Amino acid sequence: RELTMVNETQHTCSASSSSKSDGGSSSGSESSKDSSRCSTPVLDAERHERLREKMRRRQDSGDRWFSLEFFPPRTANAAVNLISRFDRMGAGGPLFIDVTWHPAGDPGSDKETSSMIIANTAVNYCGLETILHMTCCNQTKDDITGHLQKAKRLGLKNIMALRGDPAGEEWEEEVDGFNYAVDLVKHIRNEFDDYFDICVAGYPKGHPEAESYEADLKHLKEKVLAGADFIITQLFFRSETFLKFMKDCQAIGITCPIIPGIFPIQGYHSLRQLVKLSKLEVPQEIKDVIEPIKDNDAAIRNYGIELAVSMCRELLDSGVVHGLHFYTLNREVATTEVLKRLGLWKEDPRRPLPWAVSAHPKRRVEDVRPIFWASRPKSYIYRTQEWDDFPNGRWGNSSSPAFGELKDYYLFYLKSKSPREELLKMWGEELTGEESVFEVFTCYITGEPNKNGHKVTCMPWNDDPLATETNLLKEQLEKVNRRGILTINSQPNINGKPSTDPIVGWGPSGGYVFQKAYLEFFTSSEIVTALLKVLKKYESRVNYHIVNVKGQNITNAPDLQPNAVTWGIFPGREIIQPTVVDPVSFLSWKDEAFALWIEQWAKLYEEESPSRMIIQYIHDNYYLVNLVDNDFPLENCLWQVVDDTFELLNSPAQ
Amino acid sequence: RELTMVNETQHTCSASSSSKSDGGSSSGSESSKDSSRCSTPVLDAERHERLREKMRRRQDSGDRWFSLEFFPPRTANAAVNLISRFDRMGAGGPLFIDVTWHPAGDPGSDKETSSMIIANTAVNYCGLETILHMTCCNQTKDDITGHLQKAKRLGLKNIMALRGDPAGEEWEEEVDGFNYAVDLVKHIRNEFDDYFDICVAGYPKGHPEAESYEADLKHLKEKVLAGADFIITQLFFRSETFLKFMKDCQAIGITCPIIPGIFPIQGYHSLRQLVKLSKLEVPQEIKDVIEPIKDNDAAIRNYGIELAVSMCRELLDSGVVHGLHFYTLNREVATTEVLKRLGLWKEDPRRPLPWAVSAHPKRRVEDVRPIFWASRPKSYIYRTQEWDDFPNGRWGNSSSPAFGELKDYYLFYLKSKSPREELLKMWGEELTGEESVFEVFTCYITGEPNKNGHKVTCMPWNDDPLATETNLLKEQLEKVNRRGILTINSQPNINGKPSTDPIVGWGPSGGYVFQKAYLEFFTSSEIVTALLKVLKKYESRVNYHIVNVKGQNITNAPDLQPNAVTWGIFPGREIIQPTVVDPVSFLSWKDEAFALWIEQWAKLYEEESPSRMIIQYIHDNYYLVNLVDNDFPLENCLWQVVDDTFELLNSPAQ
Repeated sequence: RELTMVNETQHTCSASSSSKSDGGSSSGSESSKDSSRCSTPVLDAERHERLREKMRRRQDSGDRWFSLEFFPPRTANAAVNLISRFDRMGAGGPLFIDVTWHPAGDPGSDKETSSMIIANTAVNYCGLETILHMTCCNQTKDDITGHLQKAKRLGLKNIMALRGDPAGEEWEEEVDGFNYAVDLVKHIRNEFDDYFDICVAGYPKGHPEAESYEADLKHLKEKVLAGADFIITQLFFRSETFLKFMKDCQAIGITCPIIPGIFPIQGYHSLRQLVKLSKLEVPQEIKDVIEPIKDNDAAIRNYGIELAVSMCRELLDSGVVHGLHFYTLNREVATTEVLKRLGLWKEDPRRPLPWAVSAHPKRRVEDVRPIFWASRPKSYIYRTQEWDDFPNGRWGNSSSPAFGELKDYYLFYLKSKSPREELLKMWGEELTGEESVFEVFTCYITGEPNKNGHKVTCMPWNDDPLATETNLLKEQLEKVNRRGILTINSQPNINGKPSTDPIVGWGPSGGYVFQKAYLEFFTSSEIVTALLKVLKKYESRVNYHIVNVKGQNITNAPDLQPNAVTWGIFPGREIIQPTVVDPVSFLSWKDEAFALWIEQWAKLYEEESPSRMIIQYIHDNYYLVNLVDNDFPLENCLWQVVDDTFELLNSPAQ
Repeated sequence: RELTMVNETQHTCSASSSSKSDGGSSSGSESSKDSSRCSTPVLDAERHERLREKMRRRQDSGDRWFSLEFFPPRTANAAVNLISRFDRMGAGGPLFIDVTWHPAGDPGSDKETSSMIIANTAVNYCGLETILHMTCCNQTKDDITGHLQKAKRLGLKNIMALRGDPAGEEWEEEVDGFNYAVDLVKHIRNEFDDYFDICVAGYPKGHPEAESYEADLKHLKEKVLAGADFIITQLFFRSETFLKFMKDCQAIGITCPIIPGIFPIQGYHSLRQLVKLSKLEVPQEIKDVIEPIKDNDAAIRNYGIELAVSMCRELLDSGVVHGLHFYTLNREVATTEVLKRLGLWKEDPRRPLPWAVSAHPKRRVEDVRPIFWASRPKSYIYRTQEWDDFPNGRWGNSSSPAFGELKDYYLFYLKSKSPREELLKMWGEELTGEESVFEVFTCYITGEPNKNGHKVTCMPWNDDPLATETNLLKEQLEKVNRRGILTINSQPNINGKPSTDPIVGWGPSGGYVFQKAYLEFFTSSEIVTALLKVLKKYESRVNYHIVNVKGQNITNAPDLQPNAVTWGIFPGREIIQPTVVDPVSFLSWKDEAFALWIEQWAKLYEEESPSRMIIQYIHDNYYLVNLVDNDFPLENCLWQVVDDTFELLNSPAQ
């Protein structure tokens, strides 16, 4: 599937359709809506730019970039893994990724392995600028329009327009059909105006089916004239091949960006297959190296890395190449290694906002979220995907938009990456009481192995090990979890650290970030009763929300207003307050947080088993509590609140 | 005019009209609009309440309150003085003021002395909850509806519905006309639903024209049944009179608030006139005291104060009186003294926001303003009066709403309170050069007399002496003004002072307030040239906007975004950022700031006179500069910027 673009044929036939069928909300109405509401401070200029603008900006500034190509996996499990890979490789800072179109795999469907859904997940849940490939041959105009409308609705903004492989051996042009990529380019521009950025394929050696190299260049120019914004090339083995091609393109007036496609050789068989499909010839000097080591995968991969690095260096040194596109074959190691050696892999610990942004255009203005989903950002995005508008500036009418229903635990990208057996090892094959649950929480915090020798690296509410920031609170967290304050979310107070702070910093440099101390936990009704007495002493300093699974809700929050718990002050900008404790959305989070006890933990055990009943008991009887210490310049008083609570519980009067 | 309600007659005749003529935007559409935009944090719950709700809240909490009655003045100068009085007496915390209706004075007109415009100014420019009196007899239904529509359009929310004095001696009821206050109450409810809070008059001794005390009570009940929300009484001389009246009202089922009207005797003649008009009898014990001292104004006023204080104490001690309404006769001393002795005068140095809020309903959500108009809030309100929507949360699309044209220097409430001769003494009978202008600025800062021995207590940009907060910067301001950095606005940096701080605090208690250091000044192009060189060293730490009268604009502000320069963090709330340096509105402020040189200063001198030409030269050639130091936790660097600039100017290379 990664080879989809290999056999594409181009032609000059024009098949423009005239009727507009602009699926979702038009970009026109979107922009007018934008202008009528509060503006969002431009913290991250790129977030508001189209891909072609980002490319232009990087070219102007001389910042070199890379992009990554993936193909849709065959199984749901593979899709979960691919999405983790998106997150990991996204950390290196690709300008975009692209997802190939696999006509045989129902690519436009809602299946979790379809091209459409994989691209959707990359954009919406991984926050990656994404190009969706699309092929047009053997498809009706309506099918194609439907795919494009769906892509737009899902927030996809970039299409790689390809012909695709003809169905039969002997292929004939269809009159008024989509015979060539240029037809698809024209169709997209006709039906969707300038909504999509369009990419087309270039062939440094000429397309194998083209009459000649020169004829192929002309076809490429026609695709650009029809509205393509940039070109990604087929792979090649020598930098001269690309540089000559680029010069030839420029000579005939192609001025848009041309991005070389880089294929790090990763194995003997994949290379052979690729060569066969693409009808490319592997240069003799490469064959000479590979053939003798063809059974040594590691050796071939190392050679492939060396080869790619040196070719990329030549391309970048030429001065005409600003970005490199990698055919990853869905693998991480080789590409990551090449990028690291080239110095293009830039893991920037600083974040534009303290949570992972989504790349859906309608979420461009999103700049505030409730703190509750801090460890489950994909769930938050999922549950708010139907919102038309995103709270910006202020959290605003959190009461009006309803959170999506809580039914999709099976959502593939929300699945735990660990299989049942591993979870049982971490969380206990057999629970003996509430205390064994306390122990699991404590082990997760400390990182120490549990009594069976297994480390607890995830929890139903946290799929990843403890965040660096939470580590600041480790000692106290351990203490309270041992005593049945089962923490699932927390942050320390911060009184004006530089925005470049490696642990708590976010946003542009030169700013200052602040936090109010936050603590969220499950605990028994006995502890809650004592806690409420203690909280009277802290009135106005500490805001609290305490709720059980039935929704009995105790709070001292004034007028259901949100409490800003993270904010930043930056040079020349308005104040950003990206996380809030919002009383209304807390009740939606409550449903999710309680349900995770059952869905992720209780269901690991047999029905009616003692272990399952212990979790069920906690689910039915414990309270979910959140506490905010409003006096951020002082020492965090929340630990004192908890200490006071236990002191009260242990006092003779009790 | 303060006696308008004295002679009112009530009756039960009903004259309800059926057609709705709801002038301005309906309150329905307003509220739906509210719900579609970002919510404003409720910093000051009362700001969102109707008058009757405020009254109820005070009654429930046991907080006693007072209100003040004024009449419209005869001349524009008197109006300017009355509005200053509103500001001064507003500082004592009245729950509301009311403005009487003077039928002979064209009360609904746009004249600066009309009841309508005085009430409008009180609401919009002084931020006072205001009741506009309105009489109905001898007026057509259309006239009355027109007045009410206009009142609503101007943001007035409360009407005191009165009959008014019949035109002729012998008065006859008009069929279908407005014969009694109850007709007006019904008309208001019919035409404007629940938009207005309606007040009616009560007569503790019975209305002089009523058949009997009992009949008068019945009329009062009819007014309440027709839709009146509360009652203010005619004046009386003994607390028993009011307490009996109140009991009688309750006995016949009048349950709404009844507010005693208090008349502190302030002079022999005003008392006699009042008694004559209201047909009230002054008790003998009062006459006995007053007659012997009738030529001693001070003695009578002191007696009046004593008398009012003791009667008010009796009323408040009764437990049934929660608020007191004062007939001020537009005078300050007696009422203020009574209120202070009663402990009702509450000058709260803490402000809900760091600028004076307006009481117009559409400005209830206003929570951010550009810092430029800090000393000219009435001008800001005037120039934004046509805005439909107020930036809240974020400053937002400051570029879209246009500022009102700059033409109304003569606007009565923007006039300097000082006459021309005084201004000349302060600002110089004769200027000898730019340095004499520097001296004026310096004297304003220091508070020292100028070389002719006159203190400079106001400037064209500041009608009041230096703010307490600015005093923190006095020493440095003096230094730079001497050298031609002519400052008109500044604030120190503040890194988290308690919101209760008496100088820089604002908003609810328990919070922390912050500021970025700000400096705004006029200066010569020579200094600007050096300043720009110096600012290169401070890039990103210091944001600047530099503009001359022609609009040549030099700035390093990113993307024309506003820079938050004052913000506050409060328990359980979102962050409030009430002042910003906004690049777009700075250009509107620039027009006003430059024009004030000419309108307020140059025009004091003869045309072609050297003094006038000096001011004209400055107007034509100086730049208006604003500087923000973004590093609020560090020591303010703006003084260093200015020092560096002078050092550069004095260096040999220059």
